[in-house]
Amino acid sequence: MSIVQSDAFADPVMGEPFLLTPGPLTTAYSVKQAMLRDWGSWDGDFRAMTRSMCEQLVALAGDTKGEFTCVPMQGSGSFCVEALLGSFVPRDGKVLVLANGAYGLRAAETMRYLGRAFTLIDKGDYMPPRSDEVAAALDADPAITHVIAIHCETSSGILNPIAEISEATYARGRKLLVDSMSAFGAIDLDVNTIRYEAMVSSANKCIEGVPGFGFVIARTSELEACKGNSHSLVLDVHAQWANMVKTGQWRYTPPTHVVAAFLEALRIHAAEGGVAGRGARYARNRDVMVGGMRELGFETLLKDRWLSPIIVTFFCPAHPNFVFTDFYELMKQKGFIIYPGKLTVVESFRVGCIGRMDEHIMHRVVDAAAQSLAEMGVDTAAPPAAAIAERARLAA
Amino acid sequence: MSIVQSDAFADPVMGEPFLLTPGPLTTAYSVKQAMLRDWGSWDGDFRAMTRSMCEQLVALAGDTKGEFTCVPMQGSGSFCVEALLGSFVPRDGKVLVLANGAYGLRAAETMRYLGRAFTLIDKGDYMPPRSDEVAAALDADPAITHVIAIHCETSSGILNPIAEISEATYARGRKLLVDSMSAFGAIDLDVNTIRYEAMVSSANKCIEGVPGFGFVIARTSELEACKGNSHSLVLDVHAQWANMVKTGQWRYTPPTHVVAAFLEALRIHAAEGGVAGRGARYARNRDVMVGGMRELGFETLLKDRWLSPIIVTFFCPAHPNFVFTDFYELMKQKGFIIYPGKLTVVESFRVGCIGRMDEHIMHRVVDAAAQSLAEMGVDTAAPPAAAIAERARLAA
Ligand SMILES: Cc1ncc(COP(=O)(O)O)c(C=O)c1O
Ligand SMILES: Cc1ncc(COP(=O)(O)O)c(C=O)c1O
Repeated sequence: MSIVQSDAFADPVMGEPFLLTPGPLTTAYSVKQAMLRDWGSWDGDFRAMTRSMCEQLVALAGDTKGEFTCVPMQGSGSFCVEALLGSFVPRDGKVLVLANGAYGLRAAETMRYLGRAFTLIDKGDYMPPRSDEVAAALDADPAITHVIAIHCETSSGILNPIAEISEATYARGRKLLVDSMSAFGAIDLDVNTIRYEAMVSSANKCIEGVPGFGFVIARTSELEACKGNSHSLVLDVHAQWANMVKTGQWRYTPPTHVVAAFLEALRIHAAEGGVAGRGARYARNRDVMVGGMRELGFETLLKDRWLSPIIVTFFCPAHPNFVFTDFYELMKQKGFIIYPGKLTVVESFRVGCIGRMDEHIMHRVVDAAAQSLAEMGVDTAAPPAAAIAERARLAA
Repeated sequence: MSIVQSDAFADPVMGEPFLLTPGPLTTAYSVKQAMLRDWGSWDGDFRAMTRSMCEQLVALAGDTKGEFTCVPMQGSGSFCVEALLGSFVPRDGKVLVLANGAYGLRAAETMRYLGRAFTLIDKGDYMPPRSDEVAAALDADPAITHVIAIHCETSSGILNPIAEISEATYARGRKLLVDSMSAFGAIDLDVNTIRYEAMVSSANKCIEGVPGFGFVIARTSELEACKGNSHSLVLDVHAQWANMVKTGQWRYTPPTHVVAAFLEALRIHAAEGGVAGRGARYARNRDVMVGGMRELGFETLLKDRWLSPIIVTFFCPAHPNFVFTDFYELMKQKGFIIYPGKLTVVESFRVGCIGRMDEHIMHRVVDAAAQSLAEMGVDTAAPPAAAIAERARLAA
């Protein structure tokens, strides 16, 4: 017998823990319930679901002039990033990759696999790429045709300055592509205020669906020009789109249940007030959680200005009794799954603010952290001096 | 309130139709219920699920000597086929593609995208590629390193003669890759009786999971030799495998819910008697359905010898009142979703035998077809002479 859980931000059923992670994340029960039936992918009912989903996503990007198109793509978010680069960058194009963490570096690695030209600005673990650097790189290399930027670099949680990057890019007549995987749906990426050709995100981030596909939202004229660029049959965004226009179907078998769940997630997203409402809840989650953690002595990697409402990196405490894997298990026992850090220089961990939870749950996260520290015999979560020094590098 | 449906082969809940399609298909309710919670993809619980799934899949391939490895891959089945070709065929390799329908041609199209050498034997809509043709092609071209064959060519429903193709391939010192998308789990592809290097299938076919990922089962020594072959970061089977060995995790976000559903599907598959039990049910489904349809005057494209227990192609009746889209809607109203045909020469449609249904339901399918014909004013479903002539080409 399944238990139906309809309270907005109550505990997940079956004693499962909250996922304080960058996705897959804790989703509403009704999102999962939407998967309790099977659809024929060729059938009109499912085609209507796909159409509705794409229309809603384009609307979320703020397109009111009918200039943008949404193309969903099977696979995880990385599949979408590769599809984006392989389809939108011509074979003789050259990409400036702006990296300050794992996902920027993954975009560069993707370019390497594609065998297409690219230049990398690597700012290390988290330092944001700024417009003057972008401008200088573009001025120095006229062969560069595209810039790819990571909106929220989830490996540190930094919110990169997309608006100034876009301005620098278009001021020099180049084109911007955006990996907004972990930001879209909670942080504005409105086509009317930030110029770009195409962006990607996925089902299991800020829209709060379950994982199984991603999507590209692209300027239709740019999409039309993509034909023949792709290095891959399955990742060919143009071919996927052309087939969808012709038949209303995904080109290959879609993850039907995941799409059904996503439609329910979109409904909840709209009911919460869309991007603004969703972003506001995540910001409250972050504020409560970061405030509480700081009281325990934890320090964030980033200064407030760069902290996203998506996920926050904390330094591991200097205290000799603190062992991350123990802390992870203690937190899990209390119903909260946290995430390891990705910094190369100092030890860290991450706590997500996204998913089906609110500030009341964030208070409980802080309580669980306090209790876990006590159980480990850690009296203060203050980080080592090296961590603080590391952080001092970050400009305000 | 969700309704729990536990009767083995009862109607799907919520009045949804049976999917008589090649997948996504009708799945057990408990398979869908397994998706009613969220998992952290980094967490130990989910890593254990992945490990168990891979072990069970390798066992289904009959590997008792520990020589094969399973690597799951996000995306639809076509993503797996491309991953297979891109990873297992060296850049200077050459592939003999055996095509007798849409999926064979798609493998050739994939090779074209990869820009790697291939030769195509195209037998048209359904004629099976035979060992003498394979032998002749391999003898004629020493540059060929690999053969790719489609196990069940789902576009016609033909069961291709994999055993003789394998023998011809290895007798000439070449390597066989198999697309067993729609056959694995119901038709033997035992590594002890049929030699091959690697095969692919997906979650939503004969194991009766929901769509969202596929998997490669490969000889481990061959997998080890794959490093550096792939044209794609996300479709690199070697990198996916290496990461899994190192961390127990999927390299990029897995479709966690779909994996959970698949584990329940594997449990049901084992309880039904594994490949033999599943295959036997599908064969009964086919026999009842084909027998009944023939009584109505419908003719199968294929002679019995080539009919798979997966999906069956029927010629559209010659009767002027028969319109496929009307027939589709009438069948759907009666609770059965059928599938359009893919033949290029004559009009056809397909009826699947796979998914959570048994021969009792197949009797109802035949009744629904009889009633739909009556409603259309079609007194006999006999096909046009051209269709029968077409079929006569097929050797016994
Ligand atoms: C910014 C960013 N890009 C790409 C990805 C990759 O997505 P996936 O893990 O779904 O492949 C992620 C995942 O968290 C991400 O946050
Ligand atoms: C034999 C075969 N190969 C490949 C595919 C492609 O799988 P997908 O539609 O999941 O991409 C199918 C799908 O039915 C198939 O039957």
